[in-house]
Amino acid sequence: MKVTDKQAEHVLGALDRFEIELPSWGFSDSGTRFGQFKQAAAARTTEEKLHDAGCVHRLTGAAPSIAMHVDWDFPPTIDVEQVKREAAHHQVRIGAINPNYFQDQRYKLGSFCSPDADARELAMQHSLRSIEIGASTGSAALSVWLADGTNYPGQDSIYRRKKLLEAAFGRIHDEMAKRWSGAALLLEYKPFEPAFYHTDIGDWGMAASFARKAGPNAKVLVDTGHHLQGQNIEHIVAFPLDEGLLGGFHFNDRKYADDDLTLGSIDPYAVFRIFDQIAQFEHDRGQPAGSAPIAYMVDQSHNLKPKLEAMVQTVCEAQALFARAHLVDRDALERAQRAGDIVAAETTLRRAFFADVSGLLADWRRRRHLPEDPLTALRESGLIGRLGRERNNR
Amino acid sequence: MKVTDKQAEHVLGALDRFEIELPSWGFSDSGTRFGQFKQAAAARTTEEKLHDAGCVHRLTGAAPSIAMHVDWDFPPTIDVEQVKREAAHHQVRIGAINPNYFQDQRYKLGSFCSPDADARELAMQHSLRSIEIGASTGSAALSVWLADGTNYPGQDSIYRRKKLLEAAFGRIHDEMAKRWSGAALLLEYKPFEPAFYHTDIGDWGMAASFARKAGPNAKVLVDTGHHLQGQNIEHIVAFPLDEGLLGGFHFNDRKYADDDLTLGSIDPYAVFRIFDQIAQFEHDRGQPAGSAPIAYMVDQSHNLKPKLEAMVQTVCEAQALFARAHLVDRDALERAQRAGDIVAAETTLRRAFFADVSGLLADWRRRRHLPEDPLTALRESGLIGRLGRERNNR
Amino acid sequence: MKVTDKQAEHVLGALDRFEIELPSWGFSDSGTRFGQFKQAAAARTTEEKLHDAGCVHRLTGAAPSIAMHVDWDFPPTIDVEQVKREAAHHQVRIGAINPNYFQDQRYKLGSFCSPDADARELAMQHSLRSIEIGASTGSAALSVWLADGTNYPGQDSIYRRKKLLEAAFGRIHDEMAKRWSGAALLLEYKPFEPAFYHTDIGDWGMAASFARKAGPNAKVLVDTGHHLQGQNIEHIVAFPLDEGLLGGFHFNDRKYADDDLTLGSIDPYAVFRIFDQIAQFEHDRGQPAGSAPIAYMVDQSHNLKPKLEAMVQTVCEAQALFARAHLVDRDALERAQRAGDIVAAETTLRRAFFADVSGLLADWRRRRHLPEDPLTALRESGLIGRLGRERNNR
Amino acid sequence: MKVTDKQAEHVLGALDRFEIELPSWGFSDSGTRFGQFKQAAAARTTEEKLHDAGCVHRLTGAAPSIAMHVDWDFPPTIDVEQVKREAAHHQVRIGAINPNYFQDQRYKLGSFCSPDADARELAMQHSLRSIEIGASTGSAALSVWLADGTNYPGQDSIYRRKKLLEAAFGRIHDEMAKRWSGAALLLEYKPFEPAFYHTDIGDWGMAASFARKAGPNAKVLVDTGHHLQGQNIEHIVAFPLDEGLLGGFHFNDRKYADDDLTLGSIDPYAVFRIFDQIAQFEHDRGQPAGSAPIAYMVDQSHNLKPKLEAMVQTVCEAQALFARAHLVDRDALERAQRAGDIVAAETTLRRAFFADVSGLLADWRRRRHLPEDPLTALRESGLIGRLGRERNNR
Repeated sequence: MKVTDKQAEHVLGALDRFEIELPSWGFSDSGTRFGQFKQAAAARTTEEKLHDAGCVHRLTGAAPSIAMHVDWDFPPTIDVEQVKREAAHHQVRIGAINPNYFQDQRYKLGSFCSPDADARELAMQHSLRSIEIGASTGSAALSVWLADGTNYPGQDSIYRRKKLLEAAFGRIHDEMAKRWSGAALLLEYKPFEPAFYHTDIGDWGMAASFARKAGPNAKVLVDTGHHLQGQNIEHIVAFPLDEGLLGGFHFNDRKYADDDLTLGSIDPYAVFRIFDQIAQFEHDRGQPAGSAPIAYMVDQSHNLKPKLEAMVQTVCEAQALFARAHLVDRDALERAQRAGDIVAAETTLRRAFFADVSGLLADWRRRRHLPEDPLTALRESGLIGRLGRERNNR
Repeated sequence: MKVTDKQAEHVLGALDRFEIELPSWGFSDSGTRFGQFKQAAAARTTEEKLHDAGCVHRLTGAAPSIAMHVDWDFPPTIDVEQVKREAAHHQVRIGAINPNYFQDQRYKLGSFCSPDADARELAMQHSLRSIEIGASTGSAALSVWLADGTNYPGQDSIYRRKKLLEAAFGRIHDEMAKRWSGAALLLEYKPFEPAFYHTDIGDWGMAASFARKAGPNAKVLVDTGHHLQGQNIEHIVAFPLDEGLLGGFHFNDRKYADDDLTLGSIDPYAVFRIFDQIAQFEHDRGQPAGSAPIAYMVDQSHNLKPKLEAMVQTVCEAQALFARAHLVDRDALERAQRAGDIVAAETTLRRAFFADVSGLLADWRRRRHLPEDPLTALRESGLIGRLGRERNNR
Repeated sequence: MKVTDKQAEHVLGALDRFEIELPSWGFSDSGTRFGQFKQAAAARTTEEKLHDAGCVHRLTGAAPSIAMHVDWDFPPTIDVEQVKREAAHHQVRIGAINPNYFQDQRYKLGSFCSPDADARELAMQHSLRSIEIGASTGSAALSVWLADGTNYPGQDSIYRRKKLLEAAFGRIHDEMAKRWSGAALLLEYKPFEPAFYHTDIGDWGMAASFARKAGPNAKVLVDTGHHLQGQNIEHIVAFPLDEGLLGGFHFNDRKYADDDLTLGSIDPYAVFRIFDQIAQFEHDRGQPAGSAPIAYMVDQSHNLKPKLEAMVQTVCEAQALFARAHLVDRDALERAQRAGDIVAAETTLRRAFFADVSGLLADWRRRRHLPEDPLTALRESGLIGRLGRERNNR
Repeated sequence: MKVTDKQAEHVLGALDRFEIELPSWGFSDSGTRFGQFKQAAAARTTEEKLHDAGCVHRLTGAAPSIAMHVDWDFPPTIDVEQVKREAAHHQVRIGAINPNYFQDQRYKLGSFCSPDADARELAMQHSLRSIEIGASTGSAALSVWLADGTNYPGQDSIYRRKKLLEAAFGRIHDEMAKRWSGAALLLEYKPFEPAFYHTDIGDWGMAASFARKAGPNAKVLVDTGHHLQGQNIEHIVAFPLDEGLLGGFHFNDRKYADDDLTLGSIDPYAVFRIFDQIAQFEHDRGQPAGSAPIAYMVDQSHNLKPKLEAMVQTVCEAQALFARAHLVDRDALERAQRAGDIVAAETTLRRAFFADVSGLLADWRRRRHLPEDPLTALRESGLIGRLGRERNNR
């Protein structure tokens, strides 16, 4: 399709409002249950992660904040003020605070849902500490993913666990309201893994139910990899969005289970359709493109791709698919839809998906004094090789 | 496991309260999109369906009512009073009323969600007529399954369709409240088929959202075949049950998609676990076993099995799995769960699943002067052969 | 990406060799098990289907042949010579011959695998007639899809059925060798539907095993919709291709089961990857692009899209995705692969996928005096409206 | 069902021939990618694993051998003769030898399929060492599972990798024939994980193809958890069994992906149907029940269940489901199948599945002076507590 000047301005404006948060844990070594392949340049410390996030932002201009993992980035001994200074130094904002409810040995049977009262208390204390960190760092959200669930039929009472979880989220919401005003409580769902029989927040409907009971600042967090095969994710995005219950995303792609591949690497059209639903929502409500209060966050596991490359690639891919979604001719689409003209409606969508947006993105980057092709710029900089020699993370 | 006298009484009492509704359409010819294989004894008329349902109830004592399909069982020309007399004659109750929102050519793009106002009006008029039939027949529920959805990305606006559907259900709920007091509005969800891109009520979370907005008599209907692969159905049953939102079931089994095989034929342990969750819920609330106000309905497609055999088999199988669920030692289970003793908890469940309940069921039937083995009794009666010769449905 | 002149010539040459066969049944009414929505312009007779296929070929220049369904297009009373004359008149070739092994009431328990000897004999006689038609029409292939399978565990012996099927395919292969020399026997697999417990040719491995035993002209036919969720189809294409066992495709797209949506409508990148594997294979063997002896056939169900539009759209989409696959820089790809440079290898592939090929395709069409945008040309011609008035298929 | 004396003898004879191999790695700590929960009694050394396997065999009488993992059980420094002495001391046989092709950092891009020649050479040297160990320990099989695959489209050439793998298996087969005569080369397939785009041996059809090319002693290994959702596993068992290509099993259960839960814990009827297909095969060929040369091996990950309990439970569950499969009335089944009597055929199967086999198994154990209920015996022995105190594996 030919992009008109008006469309170009629309997309550039939308891109101005589109920010993607990077996860600190995406810069350090990760793996599968079968092992970990080490990368020499992988970040080893909180400061190295902040440094790397800063590099990605300097290259892309679209990733100003970094999600933090409490246990890994704010271990009990760390000086939070020091982390804030380092973040400022690397010119990144502290993003969502992610408590860790799955690694302590006491979480064997769950955290808030565990039959073990000590595990539940540990989870609550950890939450309170996370809230404190969130409040003191100026973060905007507490992002909660639980590994809670069971592995065998009969292992535990679904009903008791549900009650325990409702109570816990209610308390966390209240504590946040008191000490960390304005912050969102994001509740993530997942159908399975690491629990293989039932997961206490198993789907968006359950997350929405917990969110409604917790209070007005609780919202649903959609991890694109946390769905069963075939699930129409854009529908699951549109539905809570229309209900005022969509809080944000953990972006990644998958072919099978929660594969944590880089965004759009398996099914780019599906990612485009998610952005399209959000763009349609903003259009319907007369809101500026890209203005819906949704936290776009990356959550991938870069086992094989070099971590910095994977991040830059992801930010660029997200921008490209987002830009395409904002090229959909919404008036033509609505006309075709109302006329029941399926082929015309579909063609309108696909034309935008296959539009060449490289020029548009290059424009946007030039205006911001960014490299036109951030991935090539990263490769040419030799940064990863240099970090590998310095860090020598083996 | 050895069944104690106390357990036996518990199960017999639960069985007394356990009724399964048969679908009228389960007695007539059905097929796949590739064609239909005719059965000589298949019912051809509403009265023949009532007759056949009566036969199943006389053999099993557990299937006193029959769900009716408005277009097929109450065509515009039919005399509703006559149907009521026939039902009385065959000693069956008129069960849930099932409107048909998918066969008229005007429903090509949907019913309540169609961009075509005529289609929406047709659906509403059909609903009002269904409500009238429901009220006049003493039925207890309007059971709504929509084929609404789209086949291609972009085909229609998910948001507009959602709004249209919310309005329609609101109006139906109000009309029911006025004219058919006490009846339940059951909302069925389905992930796909016949719509292959998105379905307007795609999962239980959406059905629950529509039900909450429609009003207090609206509930979620779980069709066991309407789930994606892997979905933990008993969790999806327990969650809305705990919220007061579970209205009932359409029972069948499946290996792949919505295969509509007979209940428990593919995964009997999974059906047992559904009954177990309901039994646990009643136990937790101190309610009599089998007393939760849930409509248990069959919805299967007997393409190959003789229809009457399939129905009798299903009722007996449902009773057997239900009985097993009521044999679970709930105190032992809770003790094991609270102790985190996974193997003991699981063993408690499996012991009940593999319990020999044939003696118990034979007892229950003897007390009611029913044949001890209804399927064998049906076979020995020669009924299907006789009906085949009479009806000669070719 | 910028397309060089050399690349353009490569793609144009490949397009010259790329032909897509249309299915006669894609022009007449079809539906789901819930019903059929009629299209006024749908073809009602064999001649109308030949006419419509001719229209698609005149618009696209890439669909010179039409697959025929024996029962529907060559009913026992038809004059085969007359069909050949009509085909010639509409300037289309008779393509693959598709026997029908699923509609006769005797196929209730299967065709070649049925425990009923009459059903098996019927299937063999039908096959012999199909072979005759194939030989006399100059078709190049017998394309076999069986609905054979079972619906319930225990229903029949998997072993006996396997033996029966091996014998049947052996005989068909021999008869073809005698009377229809050079023709391929294409064996299609499918995991489920209409059989819902087991399907006798359930996956590519089984099809390959039957093909090997039948003889050298038997090959595997891949229907893109006949896979379980998550299956890597391009791998399943590459593997038998490398073994000399890939015979052709039935093209369509799906999100859930065998949805029979138009090609590439749900996941265009996946279709691209299939073409990429074939292009790579030809490249590796030094064969001209597009020359592998693979039958590309469409098999879709156009329930909602106007049939002629759906066909033209599909041919154009197939060409576009095929063209993109031939834009992959194979040398750069191999270099990156051998260096283990995952991001560079992936980028090479994606650059081709997102390449703007509209100019290339317009060129190719201009050279052949075809409309540059066949779908728009079809719409502007008013053909569908005219056919609707003439045929008035209600 | 009532079990006749003749049936009982048949089952007892079959049980005499039914042996299940335990995996050494099932006794030591394992986990998910999110972490590991430690068990105090988990085995820490090769000898402790041999000890624990011996305990399970003493309790169940059905698990005389233990599969070994080369890297974990035979590290380069170990004295193989010493391991053999320890095995003898604990009265267990050395079972299948499992090389490890996934943990070394050089396997980042695969083992035999890697573009890196060093990785391929490492894999071959490791194989040769594994063959040596196999030959010297009297093991009967080399059991090969590869993690080889790719994570992103384009990452590597499927064709080159296929060729490399064919060559490797050919060489391994030859080396085995030379040095370890009579041993089987078992090739395991898996659709995904840890490779998330394509896996080089992705399904049984690929494993069968590699096996055929490698040579007569190469067979397919079915891991029950290595299938896509919905796949009919008993069909996949029956098909290669009939072709002489089925080598054995890795037993476990799953609800979602490769969950590695204990056998039959999610879908016991499905496991029963696998045993039923094998029993039917033996029956059809007139072979003694339980005599087919199939290696039944356990491969589970006991993250939460106490490891010794999980093993004893699994052996007992396998025996119970195996015994039920041998209770199927094969004559009645065949009669019903040939008559097309679906309900009777299915009922014959289900009657055996739900048969109470506890008496039969108790008989079998008494005759062998084993505890009638091995799990209870294990619990009452206090063994796990004692081992926990001794090993104190934290």
